[in-house]
Amino acid sequence: MTESDAALGTEADAGQPSEEATPRRSRRGGRSGNVAPSGLRQSAWRNVQNPYAPIEVVSPQAIEDIHNASLRILEEIGMDFLLPEARALLKAAGAEVREGDERVRLDRAMVEEFVAKAPPEFTLHARNPARNLQVGGKNLNFCTVASAPNASDLPGGRRSGNQADFRKFVKLGQYFNIIHLFGGYPVEPTDIAPSIRHLDCLQDFITLSDKVFTCYSLGIERNLDALEMTRIARGLSAEELEQEPSLTSVINANSPLKYDEYMLRGIIEMSGRNQVVVITPFTLAGAMAPVTVAGALAQQNAEALAGIMFSQIVRPGAPVVYGGFTSNVDMRTGSPAFGTPEYTRAAQITGQLARRYGVPFRSSNVNASNCVDIQSAYESQMSLWGAVMGGANYLMHGAGWLEGGLCASFEKFVLDVDMLQQMAEYLTPIEVNEASLALDAMKDVGPGGHFFGTQHTQERYKTAFYEPLVSDWRNFETWDEAGSLNGTDRAHQLYLRALNEYEQPALDPAIAEELEAFVTRRKAEGGAPSDF
Amino acid sequence: MTESDAALGTEADAGQPSEEATPRRSRRGGRSGNVAPSGLRQSAWRNVQNPYAPIEVVSPQAIEDIHNASLRILEEIGMDFLLPEARALLKAAGAEVREGDERVRLDRAMVEEFVAKAPPEFTLHARNPARNLQVGGKNLNFCTVASAPNASDLPGGRRSGNQADFRKFVKLGQYFNIIHLFGGYPVEPTDIAPSIRHLDCLQDFITLSDKVFTCYSLGIERNLDALEMTRIARGLSAEELEQEPSLTSVINANSPLKYDEYMLRGIIEMSGRNQVVVITPFTLAGAMAPVTVAGALAQQNAEALAGIMFSQIVRPGAPVVYGGFTSNVDMRTGSPAFGTPEYTRAAQITGQLARRYGVPFRSSNVNASNCVDIQSAYESQMSLWGAVMGGANYLMHGAGWLEGGLCASFEKFVLDVDMLQQMAEYLTPIEVNEASLALDAMKDVGPGGHFFGTQHTQERYKTAFYEPLVSDWRNFETWDEAGSLNGTDRAHQLYLRALNEYEQPALDPAIAEELEAFVTRRKAEGGAPSDF
Repeated sequence: MTESDAALGTEADAGQPSEEATPRRSRRGGRSGNVAPSGLRQSAWRNVQNPYAPIEVVSPQAIEDIHNASLRILEEIGMDFLLPEARALLKAAGAEVREGDERVRLDRAMVEEFVAKAPPEFTLHARNPARNLQVGGKNLNFCTVASAPNASDLPGGRRSGNQADFRKFVKLGQYFNIIHLFGGYPVEPTDIAPSIRHLDCLQDFITLSDKVFTCYSLGIERNLDALEMTRIARGLSAEELEQEPSLTSVINANSPLKYDEYMLRGIIEMSGRNQVVVITPFTLAGAMAPVTVAGALAQQNAEALAGIMFSQIVRPGAPVVYGGFTSNVDMRTGSPAFGTPEYTRAAQITGQLARRYGVPFRSSNVNASNCVDIQSAYESQMSLWGAVMGGANYLMHGAGWLEGGLCASFEKFVLDVDMLQQMAEYLTPIEVNEASLALDAMKDVGPGGHFFGTQHTQERYKTAFYEPLVSDWRNFETWDEAGSLNGTDRAHQLYLRALNEYEQPALDPAIAEELEAFVTRRKAEGGAPSDF
Repeated sequence: MTESDAALGTEADAGQPSEEATPRRSRRGGRSGNVAPSGLRQSAWRNVQNPYAPIEVVSPQAIEDIHNASLRILEEIGMDFLLPEARALLKAAGAEVREGDERVRLDRAMVEEFVAKAPPEFTLHARNPARNLQVGGKNLNFCTVASAPNASDLPGGRRSGNQADFRKFVKLGQYFNIIHLFGGYPVEPTDIAPSIRHLDCLQDFITLSDKVFTCYSLGIERNLDALEMTRIARGLSAEELEQEPSLTSVINANSPLKYDEYMLRGIIEMSGRNQVVVITPFTLAGAMAPVTVAGALAQQNAEALAGIMFSQIVRPGAPVVYGGFTSNVDMRTGSPAFGTPEYTRAAQITGQLARRYGVPFRSSNVNASNCVDIQSAYESQMSLWGAVMGGANYLMHGAGWLEGGLCASFEKFVLDVDMLQQMAEYLTPIEVNEASLALDAMKDVGPGGHFFGTQHTQERYKTAFYEPLVSDWRNFETWDEAGSLNGTDRAHQLYLRALNEYEQPALDPAIAEELEAFVTRRKAEGGAPSDF
């Protein structure tokens, strides 16, 4: 029998299952999954752990070389810290800071001393304790897309982000169990005034979802509002909130080698209250970083170490994540590229660096395609494998990111949910024991037989394999007669079904009321300055 | 700066490259690639090596458990060897063979003794020595799709395979440098009579390409014709050909636990002349193998070991490859599934097994989608990562496979070429040295600057990054105005361009004449029996 014959098995008889022979599987059963009334199958909420050894792209010596290069960058070039209060904190911690000079050169001993204070693992608390997350170690947490200015779906096309789309994405993020937290606003609701946008968005996160969410560090008022709303959502005192990291914020370096006022303020407010900062340089090789991957990583590492160090100066032991976002540009057009072979290796090397420092590692699920097509899928896969086999603990932009981050796509969201579920399944250890090795079943079946009817199969077929959301495994003729929908078409239908099946999680009315009162008051006060 | 701001950099000014600022890159330059006159960029012909440690999905103890289970299968259940001559060879080698009984139980010591004779690495010779391949070790060779009964492209749709499509695929396989060899007929030319089809196909392989090719083991005449045509193509004597493996054939077990007459005959003829057999059980968990991945792998391993052992009984030291093809079925419909999380882990565990035996490992780039969509891309990526990080040496169905092997797609071929090129680039080590760490460039640029104009960038930008075939990195507006073609549309254009740029490789006229005479004579004799 050739492989061709075998592949033809569903048509010819090559010992392959037929409709008749296969045990019928209820659409309402899923592999330890839960099923909404209308029957959409999805994986159960779970803590995803990565049992495999990460891929080591470069040698330990090369990691030391990158490490040393970044320490030399910080010593010999230094970084610009634009916030005077941050420079005062650096000076108090022992750095050589010159009056009126934003540039601060950092001694390597000081950098290493403070980076070593960062915790290797921490718990991130949600308002629903069942949604608490472990960050660090072997744990892998998946975020939604964040910060896209546009949204799109198939019939609606691409439009500026609005509150209706924002809320739909929050509902999808809540609905799909594989999504652990919101890494930012999935789409920017540009129809809400910037001064009060954070109040509406955070209120939506808290009321439409019970998962962990993220605030933006765009001025002290926004950080303080977010911290207060998180405190209210969790029903804690301010002191209690300081014991339990519950809010995250992404801190981007203004690469090369600069932290602006907003970002440093964010670290001060967030780390100062023991909340999570995800320190993420954006080092595009060939643009804001050297054209070589090694050089871009040395710069990324310098910027990341400076940010991590600063968080530990603000508060030793505060939870912090090392974010890698090194990619390359298209040198013909200058456009940023994502999910490239350079990106994948940079992600995995970043994992090596983060593990060297014992700091949780953040990576991303990114692509640069303009639509939900093969490019969006293969670039995302290259990103995912970079993250997962790089040992990432925190995956930003896990579901929905399109177009280099300029668009949040509803169809891409579902595609990514399926790919994340598949990754989680891939990371589930294979059982090898007497029962799974199935010698008795093979004895029963013998050469030339088949395994459908065996007791071994009957006992296991319902939960034996991952059941995908998007994949269509029907034969060509059946698929063609049913309208020959491609995967993107199917993802469209699935996102509508998921929205339909979404249920708002319970929220203590007293908390909802306190939250509403806070938002109303802060809106009346004018919200936050928005002159940035 | 938030990531959203940064991503917006091509529109706003966030320190990102603009059309003006970017060094213009000639479309005729590529990263160590070669460029056809009309400018299609592609990677150069190269030996791909995998420098990374493979992913170990299960523990060494679990590998021993699978190994022992498969030896017990061979001892306690045995396998059916349908060819009397094969049973005679087994008996002569010490196996307990009962007269008239196809079932042969194999002693573990005998299995281990013969499997140990298989070479860990060998050279596979092409008629053009520049196309010779190393199989085994860290080497990774990419094959075209093989054995699809149908072909498709966008405007033509799906049709039964024919000679015109066959020849186009051979030309594409020759044209794209990332394709190392033909793993079989890319599509079955069903418009040629089965009795003489192999003669036409092999003649096409030899005249339209100078790369290694494959014959089918479908009766002794086909094997002998292929061996003779390979001998002619290489300009060797029969004795010389025996010194240089130059022809491959895939040997599928008729799972469960059976080798049929054709396959055993193929091993006898091919291994007997020191040519390559790729022993590949087709163990679909839940159908022809137990529903558990561990059980399916134990059966796969038993079948593979039996085939490898038999090749070494035929001729100790003959080149042989351990092929893994364990996947699962959709338990609702019985359809085979590919590129699933189960598939990926099975591929990587197969790599662990093949390395245990020191035999080169064959895997595949497979998917079950009915069209070139996101599903085809993500399932292929899951297969590719299973193969590549499983340490595969020989990747069957590398380019063009669609629909679970029932269709060879021209657009999928180009998509796969791009993904294979990206994998090869991913496997290229990152240079970490003083020049690549770029401290001087960072000193020149300093905080807040950009790297376009620096000497460090100017010296490297032309070859710094992999340039994809299919990916479109233009911004949304430009892409939209240009017709908003998706990746599949672009792959369609690229395959037509590649066919247009294809050039037939030189062939010694004396060899061409001898080949033609042989084919003419064999056709006149009626070709090969085709009553199977």
